[in-house]
Amino acid sequence: MKKFQFSLLNSDKNARAGEIITAHGNIETPIFMPVGTLATVKAMHLRDVLEIGAQIILANTYHLMLRPGENIIKKFGGVRRFMSWQKPLLTDSGGFQIMSLSKLTKLSDTGVEFKSHIDGTKYFLTPEKSTEIQKILDATISMQLDECVSYPIEKRKAFKSMELSLNWAKRSRDAFSFRDGYGQFGIVQGSVFSEFREISALELKNIDFDGFAIGGLAVGEPQSIMFETIINTVKHLPFDKPRYLMGVGKPDDILGAIKRGVDMFDCVLPTRSGRNGQAFTSFGPINIKNSRFIQDEKPIDLNCLCHTCKTFSRAYLNHLFKCKEILGASLLTQHNLHFYLNLVKKARNSIIENNFEQFEREFLTQYYSGKEIYD
Amino acid sequence: MKKFQFSLLNSDKNARAGEIITAHGNIETPIFMPVGTLATVKAMHLRDVLEIGAQIILANTYHLMLRPGENIIKKFGGVRRFMSWQKPLLTDSGGFQIMSLSKLTKLSDTGVEFKSHIDGTKYFLTPEKSTEIQKILDATISMQLDECVSYPIEKRKAFKSMELSLNWAKRSRDAFSFRDGYGQFGIVQGSVFSEFREISALELKNIDFDGFAIGGLAVGEPQSIMFETIINTVKHLPFDKPRYLMGVGKPDDILGAIKRGVDMFDCVLPTRSGRNGQAFTSFGPINIKNSRFIQDEKPIDLNCLCHTCKTFSRAYLNHLFKCKEILGASLLTQHNLHFYLNLVKKARNSIIENNFEQFEREFLTQYYSGKEIYD
Repeated sequence: MKKFQFSLLNSDKNARAGEIITAHGNIETPIFMPVGTLATVKAMHLRDVLEIGAQIILANTYHLMLRPGENIIKKFGGVRRFMSWQKPLLTDSGGFQIMSLSKLTKLSDTGVEFKSHIDGTKYFLTPEKSTEIQKILDATISMQLDECVSYPIEKRKAFKSMELSLNWAKRSRDAFSFRDGYGQFGIVQGSVFSEFREISALELKNIDFDGFAIGGLAVGEPQSIMFETIINTVKHLPFDKPRYLMGVGKPDDILGAIKRGVDMFDCVLPTRSGRNGQAFTSFGPINIKNSRFIQDEKPIDLNCLCHTCKTFSRAYLNHLFKCKEILGASLLTQHNLHFYLNLVKKARNSIIENNFEQFEREFLTQYYSGKEIYD
Repeated sequence: MKKFQFSLLNSDKNARAGEIITAHGNIETPIFMPVGTLATVKAMHLRDVLEIGAQIILANTYHLMLRPGENIIKKFGGVRRFMSWQKPLLTDSGGFQIMSLSKLTKLSDTGVEFKSHIDGTKYFLTPEKSTEIQKILDATISMQLDECVSYPIEKRKAFKSMELSLNWAKRSRDAFSFRDGYGQFGIVQGSVFSEFREISALELKNIDFDGFAIGGLAVGEPQSIMFETIINTVKHLPFDKPRYLMGVGKPDDILGAIKRGVDMFDCVLPTRSGRNGQAFTSFGPINIKNSRFIQDEKPIDLNCLCHTCKTFSRAYLNHLFKCKEILGASLLTQHNLHFYLNLVKKARNSIIENNFEQFEREFLTQYYSGKEIYD
């Protein structure tokens, strides 16, 4: 069985092109990971998730422990078999969702007691328990349990929370079962305070995770502060391990983070937007429900080679959304995921060719141009 | 260009196996036609509609004249091009939907004035107008405008309505543009009164449509009365034209109608049920949301070869429905349509082998057995 490892193919200044070797297949970085919270990428068939080039998808420990519960997934030998996904899977630890979705009843050093947002059932999650559940879920990449604070936050609170996440990091790592081709990532916290990010990154580096995530961003801070925080985090992370920016973001966020040394991304934006009628295009986002598209025979994006753009007009998609037909959500999600995966693929190629900054500039020039933006 | 025609391959007593030749491809009968009211088969990708063996789908004049409007579809050269469907398309005339959905404001010999059920806009539809719109929609098979009465109904009213539909039949036929490979069907009415069905069938036969539909059934009458009415209608219809039972029905309804000489069917049941969690199986319908399936590793139907059954467990589908994930609706719809298309295909093969009654008996024995029915 293969060892879990990251190999760097090329660096173009701080931007990196690499490959992660896992038990369930290789992942070319930089990569975008479609979000499959409840063991399905919303509105998508898996065959189409493969067709658009996905190499790894996400699932969520918090959501899956509530529904259907880890014991049912255990019976199937993990999420991948439960949902028939052959490639790698990353599971978030549940920390972020406990804070954002459930009625948080009690946070202590030991762990977090919370009530299900669905039926109010009480659960108690610890770093050990989260790690154990992620093993049951058979996640190719597990995440440590962490606490994610809101923005802005008092410095004192940010420090305390960062320290708690570090404590949970050690315990998560101790609870992790080493298996060939499987990895576990630590999560750097510390809000926007560079000194806390440094402490967090260095401590996690000592714990020696298989990869490092940057958490606590894309929670309302300006893009410039996010980029600054990425710089202040990445410089303390080891060169030979993958770096994952959690929950980010818009296409320009992703390019900016790649430029600053990030390798992995996930975000609900392409899937959620797709269900709501927003499509990402090379000339910026458009809303397909806009009445300007009622008679428009063009595809969403003339530059796009996805199934949706090769087959359907804006007018037809506009019609599907007006009638609230499921196919509309499905086709737009497929287009958006294709757009994201194509973006990181082109970024990767440009890094290999030592040409990233030119690629970024050309992309952003067209993306920000506003040409053909109708709303 | 090919002439629109029906050729009979074999009769097994009253059951018929045939083929309809059209401008957009051939249709092997008996056939089930998936319903694509608004230019999409709900929750389905077209590639999967093809994969399950669909040879013709339905769309609806009433719905499409309201959204997106026939003028937009005209720009695309018809519904088939608008939605990227290559095979034949049948459009219902809109009569049934005006009666059931809209606020019917005024019915006269001339036509029907109605208000859109979406925004209250007033429309006036005549047999001529419906026929013209169906030409714009580029329907391979157009339907005459008719009035469909409820059940039970006074004999006097049934007669009057049947006469109105006959009048509209003549006017629809006069308005029809003959094009190679395109056809138009008349619709037999007369509620459950055999003498009215006879008059209606004979008159429509004189008008010489390309095929004949049986309307006004599956509106609440017992199955035995439906079968009786089919017998009393079919015996007056020409042998060399296809017969289409509109809006029917459950699997046993379809087999019973095939036995009595019907060639074509449509029904929302497999698609609507699929979105609601009901799956058709060889041992009867089941509801996948039932808690008995929470841990069930079996496919919906061990006898089924559809993508859903080859790939996913009942437990996973149960999970998707509990979480209201779109993929659940999509996978169950696909299974149900496969079940219906497989049913008519097997019926067809048994007719060719002069073995229909044995096939029907064996199917119904297992279907009614109740074995593995959980709710």
